Amino acid sequence: MIKAGIIGATGYAGNELVRLLLQHKDVEIVWYGSRSFIDQPYASVYQNFFQLVDEKCLDDNMEELAKQADVIFTATPQGYCASMVTEEMLSQTKIIDLSADFRIKDVAVYEEWYGITHKSPQFIEEAVYGLCELNREKVKTARLLANPGCYPTCSILSIYPLMKEGLIDPQSIIIDAKSGTSGAGRGAKVANLYCEVNENIKAYGVASHRHTPEIEEQLGYAGNCKPVLNFTPHLVPMNRGILVTAYANLKKPMTDEEVRAVYKKYYDNEYFVRVLPKGVCPETRNVEGSNYVDVNFKIDPRTNRIIMMGSMDNLVKGAAGQAVQNMNLMFGLNEQEGLHQIPMLP
Amino acid sequence: MIKAGIIGATGYAGNELVRLLLQHKDVEIVWYGSRSFIDQPYASVYQNFFQLVDEKCLDDNMEELAKQADVIFTATPQGYCASMVTEEMLSQTKIIDLSADFRIKDVAVYEEWYGITHKSPQFIEEAVYGLCELNREKVKTARLLANPGCYPTCSILSIYPLMKEGLIDPQSIIIDAKSGTSGAGRGAKVANLYCEVNENIKAYGVASHRHTPEIEEQLGYAGNCKPVLNFTPHLVPMNRGILVTAYANLKKPMTDEEVRAVYKKYYDNEYFVRVLPKGVCPETRNVEGSNYVDVNFKIDPRTNRIIMMGSMDNLVKGAAGQAVQNMNLMFGLNEQEGLHQIPMLP
Amino acid sequence: MIKAGIIGATGYAGNELVRLLLQHKDVEIVWYGSRSFIDQPYASVYQNFFQLVDEKCLDDNMEELAKQADVIFTATPQGYCASMVTEEMLSQTKIIDLSADFRIKDVAVYEEWYGITHKSPQFIEEAVYGLCELNREKVKTARLLANPGCYPTCSILSIYPLMKEGLIDPQSIIIDAKSGTSGAGRGAKVANLYCEVNENIKAYGVASHRHTPEIEEQLGYAGNCKPVLNFTPHLVPMNRGILVTAYANLKKPMTDEEVRAVYKKYYDNEYFVRVLPKGVCPETRNVEGSNYVDVNFKIDPRTNRIIMMGSMDNLVKGAAGQAVQNMNLMFGLNEQEGLHQIPMLP
Amino acid sequence: MIKAGIIGATGYAGNELVRLLLQHKDVEIVWYGSRSFIDQPYASVYQNFFQLVDEKCLDDNMEELAKQADVIFTATPQGYCASMVTEEMLSQTKIIDLSADFRIKDVAVYEEWYGITHKSPQFIEEAVYGLCELNREKVKTARLLANPGCYPTCSILSIYPLMKEGLIDPQSIIIDAKSGTSGAGRGAKVANLYCEVNENIKAYGVASHRHTPEIEEQLGYAGNCKPVLNFTPHLVPMNRGILVTAYANLKKPMTDEEVRAVYKKYYDNEYFVRVLPKGVCPETRNVEGSNYVDVNFKIDPRTNRIIMMGSMDNLVKGAAGQAVQNMNLMFGLNEQEGLHQIPMLP
Repeated sequence: MIKAGIIGATGYAGNELVRLLLQHKDVEIVWYGSRSFIDQPYASVYQNFFQLVDEKCLDDNMEELAKQADVIFTATPQGYCASMVTEEMLSQTKIIDLSADFRIKDVAVYEEWYGITHKSPQFIEEAVYGLCELNREKVKTARLLANPGCYPTCSILSIYPLMKEGLIDPQSIIIDAKSGTSGAGRGAKVANLYCEVNENIKAYGVASHRHTPEIEEQLGYAGNCKPVLNFTPHLVPMNRGILVTAYANLKKPMTDEEVRAVYKKYYDNEYFVRVLPKGVCPETRNVEGSNYVDVNFKIDPRTNRIIMMGSMDNLVKGAAGQAVQNMNLMFGLNEQEGLHQIPMLP
Repeated sequence: MIKAGIIGATGYAGNELVRLLLQHKDVEIVWYGSRSFIDQPYASVYQNFFQLVDEKCLDDNMEELAKQADVIFTATPQGYCASMVTEEMLSQTKIIDLSADFRIKDVAVYEEWYGITHKSPQFIEEAVYGLCELNREKVKTARLLANPGCYPTCSILSIYPLMKEGLIDPQSIIIDAKSGTSGAGRGAKVANLYCEVNENIKAYGVASHRHTPEIEEQLGYAGNCKPVLNFTPHLVPMNRGILVTAYANLKKPMTDEEVRAVYKKYYDNEYFVRVLPKGVCPETRNVEGSNYVDVNFKIDPRTNRIIMMGSMDNLVKGAAGQAVQNMNLMFGLNEQEGLHQIPMLP
Repeated sequence: MIKAGIIGATGYAGNELVRLLLQHKDVEIVWYGSRSFIDQPYASVYQNFFQLVDEKCLDDNMEELAKQADVIFTATPQGYCASMVTEEMLSQTKIIDLSADFRIKDVAVYEEWYGITHKSPQFIEEAVYGLCELNREKVKTARLLANPGCYPTCSILSIYPLMKEGLIDPQSIIIDAKSGTSGAGRGAKVANLYCEVNENIKAYGVASHRHTPEIEEQLGYAGNCKPVLNFTPHLVPMNRGILVTAYANLKKPMTDEEVRAVYKKYYDNEYFVRVLPKGVCPETRNVEGSNYVDVNFKIDPRTNRIIMMGSMDNLVKGAAGQAVQNMNLMFGLNEQEGLHQIPMLP
Repeated sequence: MIKAGIIGATGYAGNELVRLLLQHKDVEIVWYGSRSFIDQPYASVYQNFFQLVDEKCLDDNMEELAKQADVIFTATPQGYCASMVTEEMLSQTKIIDLSADFRIKDVAVYEEWYGITHKSPQFIEEAVYGLCELNREKVKTARLLANPGCYPTCSILSIYPLMKEGLIDPQSIIIDAKSGTSGAGRGAKVANLYCEVNENIKAYGVASHRHTPEIEEQLGYAGNCKPVLNFTPHLVPMNRGILVTAYANLKKPMTDEEVRAVYKKYYDNEYFVRVLPKGVCPETRNVEGSNYVDVNFKIDPRTNRIIMMGSMDNLVKGAAGQAVQNMNLMFGLNEQEGLHQIPMLP
């Protein structure tokens, strides 16, 4: 059994990690870390776990946890993991960081977009960006894993095949994304109150959202270029789900069949990426509660643009599910272990 | 492997049956019956099953299906199962009927409340009312199983211990219930459109809802009496979930501890019924996607009434999950097999 | 022009007061009081008022405000108004208090249910309970008006005619109420986050909610008795609206026509109370944004109970609208002035 | 008093027309046309109008209506108005058509995108496109008014100033739009059921939505060019509201102040268009129930693109409100008459 500890277990991503790990046959959770709820039963914070989790919340002592656990998941605010991780810890345990601390290779870019000083830049180089479908081999040997952001996961997987094959103009990419509200976290903020979110939609972080450089970096690796793109997230009145609608100019006219072949080339063997049939648009409800990403596209011959679409559960493939997928790879397990939840509808 | 067929596979209860049975290690679905979608791929009706279900929808030929399947689930409108079932079928297969056709023992009561003539009253006697927690032994040997209604399941389990022990006045019971909209089915009706349901709550079927006699009959067995009660359902703007708030007069003053002991007596060994800690009210989100029923109560010494509360996922414990629980019992499997989904929150 | 000041202008009730008063031809708002947002433009807190309100938020100096305003609305936490009001203020201005401070005549009851010491019990006697339909004449001459609670308004108006006529057993009353989330206020609490409220329903304050004694007191006046009743509120995933489903035993069997005549006796001349046609249940959406209360009932001859139902917008008739209705009466205006908003649907 | 008739009075746009016209001091509704509900009280279809509208629904006899009414609103399916309108009618009454029949000047474009034959192309030339802010003078003298589509209204007003001034590349425009579900109408379709829409977001009509040519035509007039653009609508789980996020390349670098000056040039005197302060994104809730369009923009110097945003209530400024605004102009009234509803929040 893999002994897993979670720091930040009472956030929404932490809660989802617990749901998934409890259903994973090879994992035992040994540490429910939550600074805000120390000594309180975890199931008193999340009543859905009543009679399923008896443990109480512990503190965020990662040093101690590193001695007890085979893997630590940090579902914590930006900067926390970078401020804690040490060589000693990494010699004792594996770390899967759900924050952005180790996603971006250029520390200057990280510091500019996140507005904080990186506390352990010495580990950035070795950290592996855990988008399994792109980096599978590297993930397998990682000690420190940077779990991708929710928007980047859905955006990159929607666009990746065409970037990799050089079929779209990298500078023409526009990503218009929509997210459910769990992505905003469980902090007590007026902006996230029910009455502020319900019956409303708005853009936020326009031309300035922190996930922009993460998407650019990964698409740049795929296309061997330096794309500068627009990314606009929107807040949608629903709990879960991310939908990406991305636009790019095709370098040359292509047929649906040609493009479809490209998507199939990259995703036919990817269990968690489903290329939908022609004419079927991704919907967030069709992946809710699961680790799937549904992708599809539409070519517009009038404008010579391609519209690439992807849907995903932000808490599963966008956070906890992908973290488990990475853990499976890092421990030599079947990548799908514990991740066969079927999307729940309605 | 148990070969299972579903008639009415494209309704919401049918869809949930598919989700659960696909995750059940001892079951294979051999028939996705849906008169409205014959020959169409099941996954084209419910895209969440894309790449998980390849089969096409078949018709509702129960005679043929009875020859192929070990068990038939009928998730069909009232009257359908009663009009189809024959002795021959029952000699070939087991039938789990999710409609109300065989729930009520007094055919006159059925015909009065449902307004239709019962087509096979000869099978009512042998049909077993499949509320596992109450009828476990009878379920094990049933050929024809009447799967309980959603409101009755939640109402009965919330009230049962106190009725069984004779601690409340049977004629004082008032059940005020609230349901998500999936309970209204997938029919294309104006009343169930998004814009008609959203931002609204209303009572319906006041003093006339068909689930009333079903609740009365079962509570009558428990209390060895003939309760006549009020049941008022409400439509709530959410997909899933039933919440029951029930009121009754205590026959004599009791303490919280005394009543709690009664609930524990009946439910301590029931995996799917969770008696919440004192002071914690059931919430539908805490059971969503799972087969749990959460129950609790509050004594009001000012009025000498007890308020009994229960929450449940109407599509799982209120329909498909309970049907699988019954199937497990009928086939000698572990009752919990395939039903360990953890409630998904948020 | 009536000069009106609002203390607590940036809560949801305060915001609704602004919406209504801006549309009132005889009122000018002279003070947008909000301790949390002093010196910030009111329209920066509530962007819906952009270009409609230019004023900045002021502090909560009621003494100063009393000199400037003809009427002060206090949409403030319990205890605030009672701690501020003085004889001098009341000689300078009228006060309409939207909190519970002056609703309950027995100060001991207030202090028990609210858990705070009343700071100015000397004004309780003269304060008028502003349920206009019941207390119209007293309201006209009030200096200090206690604006009713949201649940009490809807509950009392649903039950009042039968209590007044002595047709129901006062000790048999059970009120099961459901409210949209704006009733929980705009405070930054985890329990009111979108992801905590959405896709969920729960009871709260079971057998202990503070609105219970307020309802009991007013129904007691109507029936000349001392009813002790059950009141159970529920939180519903919608912004606005309260639905009341109330149960009581009829003292003698009655027909629908007989009961309907009683409702009409009291409400035929009440513009804001609509007795719906037989068979039509109140729904919150049908009154959203308006000052209407829709009421109806159903007699259940099986149990000899009557089910009384009412729907209302908690922010309008349940708070700001009723406050304006009271203001109109207190200033000798047409009671309906500024309150002709038509319910907005969907 | 202007005598107004409505054909299609029981759709959501018709219902909103009734709400607005009842509050208009110069209008009397003489005809509630609804083929589906003939002879039924209008208020039995929409209970929000109980005691406010006593009339019954009439048929869709436009010939007869033309004799009785000063203005006819057709809130009807595509093709209906074109199939009914005659020179005789237009000599008797004014017609405001809320369908697309007379919005597009090139009949071939209309027939291609809508897939139907235009039945009265002879009236297309004289019909006036009723986007008041752009066509005010022409509207004043119109007999036959084409009320703009919901998406086009919001899209065009968001982009117009920059097109008019030639500051963006017309061929670079991408419009990503999001709409509440009332835009899908009140037809009984499975796709619009609560459980299909709730907790979901999806794109639809990708690269093929009928509002595309309408937007292109009007922006073409503004920019004196022939833009070919991408328009992608999305369905959002909320009742009302449209949000537009539009992207275009700036022809030359510009500052926020420079662009802001351009918006102010065109909208400073437009009561119903609010240019928000720098940094404030439009949200649908801030205009709900009102005739306002909130617009703003953000320049992205990294990509040299400008992101233009607009929010609007699809049933008001996107349908009924704009129709009333047009009526006001056509009858020489104050353009704002009856349209001072303040956005309702939450």
